[in-house]
Amino acid sequence: MAQRLNARDPDFPQAFAALLATKREISEDVDQAVRVIIDDVVARGDAALIDYTSRFDQLDLTPETLRISDAEIDAAETQCSRDALEALALAKARIETYHRAQRPQDAMTTDAVGVTLGWRWTAIESVGLYVPGGRASYPSSVLMNAVPAKVAGVPRIAMVVPTPRGETNPLVLAAARLAGVDEVLRIGGAQAVAALAYGTATIQPVAKIVGPGNAYVAAAKRRVFGQVGIDMIAGPSEVLILADAHANPDWVAADLLAQAEHDPVAQSILVTDSPALADAVEVAVEHQLQTLPKAEIAGASWRDFGAIILVESLVDAVPLVDRLAPEHLEIETEDAEALAAKVRNAGSIFLGSHTPEAIGDYVGGPNHVLPTARSARFSSGLGVLDFMKRTSILKCDPGALRALGPAAIALGRSEGLEGHARSVAIRLNL
Amino acid sequence: MAQRLNARDPDFPQAFAALLATKREISEDVDQAVRVIIDDVVARGDAALIDYTSRFDQLDLTPETLRISDAEIDAAETQCSRDALEALALAKARIETYHRAQRPQDAMTTDAVGVTLGWRWTAIESVGLYVPGGRASYPSSVLMNAVPAKVAGVPRIAMVVPTPRGETNPLVLAAARLAGVDEVLRIGGAQAVAALAYGTATIQPVAKIVGPGNAYVAAAKRRVFGQVGIDMIAGPSEVLILADAHANPDWVAADLLAQAEHDPVAQSILVTDSPALADAVEVAVEHQLQTLPKAEIAGASWRDFGAIILVESLVDAVPLVDRLAPEHLEIETEDAEALAAKVRNAGSIFLGSHTPEAIGDYVGGPNHVLPTARSARFSSGLGVLDFMKRTSILKCDPGALRALGPAAIALGRSEGLEGHARSVAIRLNL
Repeated sequence: MAQRLNARDPDFPQAFAALLATKREISEDVDQAVRVIIDDVVARGDAALIDYTSRFDQLDLTPETLRISDAEIDAAETQCSRDALEALALAKARIETYHRAQRPQDAMTTDAVGVTLGWRWTAIESVGLYVPGGRASYPSSVLMNAVPAKVAGVPRIAMVVPTPRGETNPLVLAAARLAGVDEVLRIGGAQAVAALAYGTATIQPVAKIVGPGNAYVAAAKRRVFGQVGIDMIAGPSEVLILADAHANPDWVAADLLAQAEHDPVAQSILVTDSPALADAVEVAVEHQLQTLPKAEIAGASWRDFGAIILVESLVDAVPLVDRLAPEHLEIETEDAEALAAKVRNAGSIFLGSHTPEAIGDYVGGPNHVLPTARSARFSSGLGVLDFMKRTSILKCDPGALRALGPAAIALGRSEGLEGHARSVAIRLNL
Repeated sequence: MAQRLNARDPDFPQAFAALLATKREISEDVDQAVRVIIDDVVARGDAALIDYTSRFDQLDLTPETLRISDAEIDAAETQCSRDALEALALAKARIETYHRAQRPQDAMTTDAVGVTLGWRWTAIESVGLYVPGGRASYPSSVLMNAVPAKVAGVPRIAMVVPTPRGETNPLVLAAARLAGVDEVLRIGGAQAVAALAYGTATIQPVAKIVGPGNAYVAAAKRRVFGQVGIDMIAGPSEVLILADAHANPDWVAADLLAQAEHDPVAQSILVTDSPALADAVEVAVEHQLQTLPKAEIAGASWRDFGAIILVESLVDAVPLVDRLAPEHLEIETEDAEALAAKVRNAGSIFLGSHTPEAIGDYVGGPNHVLPTARSARFSSGLGVLDFMKRTSILKCDPGALRALGPAAIALGRSEGLEGHARSVAIRLNL
């Protein structure tokens, strides 16, 4: 059973602060092992990659078989059910439409002084996409990472996915093809991250690496950052549901458990002004757990990290939401839009009773790669901008330089940078 | 004298690869010291902050004097020259205008299926701005960091600046006031970063920390990342000048030296198709060095990291530029715009002979906080988006859920997430 907090209790501030401070990640100390692997891939290239894949994935490769062939992807597609392929196609189309609207505008203007200035957006030249093997190998994540990259115009996406003992997930390969992934490599772990960052004889290096992974992958991404760009390091997933007396307790319970089934350290929180709803949800969760296939995981998450917070009124809940800055925020109340408008910090918002988070996880259109662990206070979900960069552009004509030059000279001298001042003065014969 | 490379030489690919791989940063191992300082500030708050400031800055503070008062900023302003204040005001106005155009649009639409979806941008609730003390205490950097934050709508900017032995830079304080900084604290180093990230009894914590600093500050920012957001960790500055036979060698030399005077590990590179220009620039650099106040720094940078690269034609230079991905790219050629349009990777581009980088450093309008060390391949200069975050929004009505639900159920089951499928199915009586 999840913990209960009541905003009326005198010790609520302390209890809420403790909830905020809960650490849900076990930080494994894998950094030293990862350093050795990366150095080895840098030094020995394909040979190191092949050795580690043999050791960690029990799979013997050659430089020629590192890449999964088109014929293998053809074969994988035939193994997928038509239902799943159609669902994937619908998801891809909706994700693409949503992200197309995120493409940024270039700007260029000439001002009154005669300065032409603005910026230009360009796609990142190549991107590596990490896809975990085994249990967490999700076709939906392939779409959520690769589709925005292609919408941004990235010319080359190289995907890596470990295939322990040669086992592949056919729907992951189908998703890769559907999303326009250019190369698929059957490697994983820190060695795959190193190969993407530094390249080998058979693998061209990329400029940025995205995608989720285990502790080794996360540590490797941190370590190659600088050599290449990386996306955020995702923590365990979380949902906060804001609900009033009108919400259906069975639906709310199902949404809390959909989050909890991801991981024993996932977190599901209900905030409500209705004691009756709180009680009913608690009962419904226990009831639904009895038949959930992943009841062990979901039960542990709910027991260890779940919470039900009773507030006096839903407006009182908004500051609590902003402090928790949830990855997913469901608002199942009568005035969901009005309440949503008051929230500053959330990765994504699901409005009303007919928008379970699972719709957004798969087919809504918005990205499901979202800021976890309170980082929605300062960061956004994955989007097209993560696969582009902006170059600023400035051009002065001689008149513009005459107009702005003296101020630049004054500031250069005030900062003790005479060379800066002279680079302007020399052009103005000053 | 800088090294010379010639694209015609048979060993050019190796020489260019070596130039690309040049490490210019001395990575000091300060991480352990920084960890101790941060832990101490978390544990003892203001008392630790006061102790470290006494030890590192030879300045004795109390909780009451941590903050620089309005009266002190008034007094500082009176110490600044009118020229400098006017130049600062011009810079602020131009930076503000440029960045206002970067404010992103919210989007919200209802599609044919009945799904309402889009996103909303909100400002980060509070930002900490680190400003170095001593030699690298630049008023222009205060504007370049604080103005975009205010344009984004950040309600609170807390600036920290160390004041060794109580010495302040009056123009830095004037810039802070001009830019709308809300609080100025006379602290620096890892202890200031820790105070901003975790808060103390007198300092409210922030959600993101930006601004340059020494190795201790950089290590502290890396360490508090996650607790708060951080901007990029900047490396030494660099310029690449692309010039043809029409360029003025004295002007080109002045621009190379303006970059080189920043730091012995700054880097200035000239790429040209004109051997005559290459020779003339080389002579002009040596000549100008004779009277440059920071000749020692600039001379060391030019000797150790400077380069002149001769290419067959300027179009051949474009792939070299993209691989170097310079922070600053000056194009002093006849067809500067056409050449600029071919470049993918550059932090900022300065077009034509009348746009020395120094104009952009101070008063052009674009930001001078730009990606260094080849990171323009995957990242952008500082801008308004760095002070905002995007929340995605999704709303299904019952009809939309009926339309999309089956696909979400199919994908949930294909990923082994039955709880996801059920959270949809329970609403559709499936």
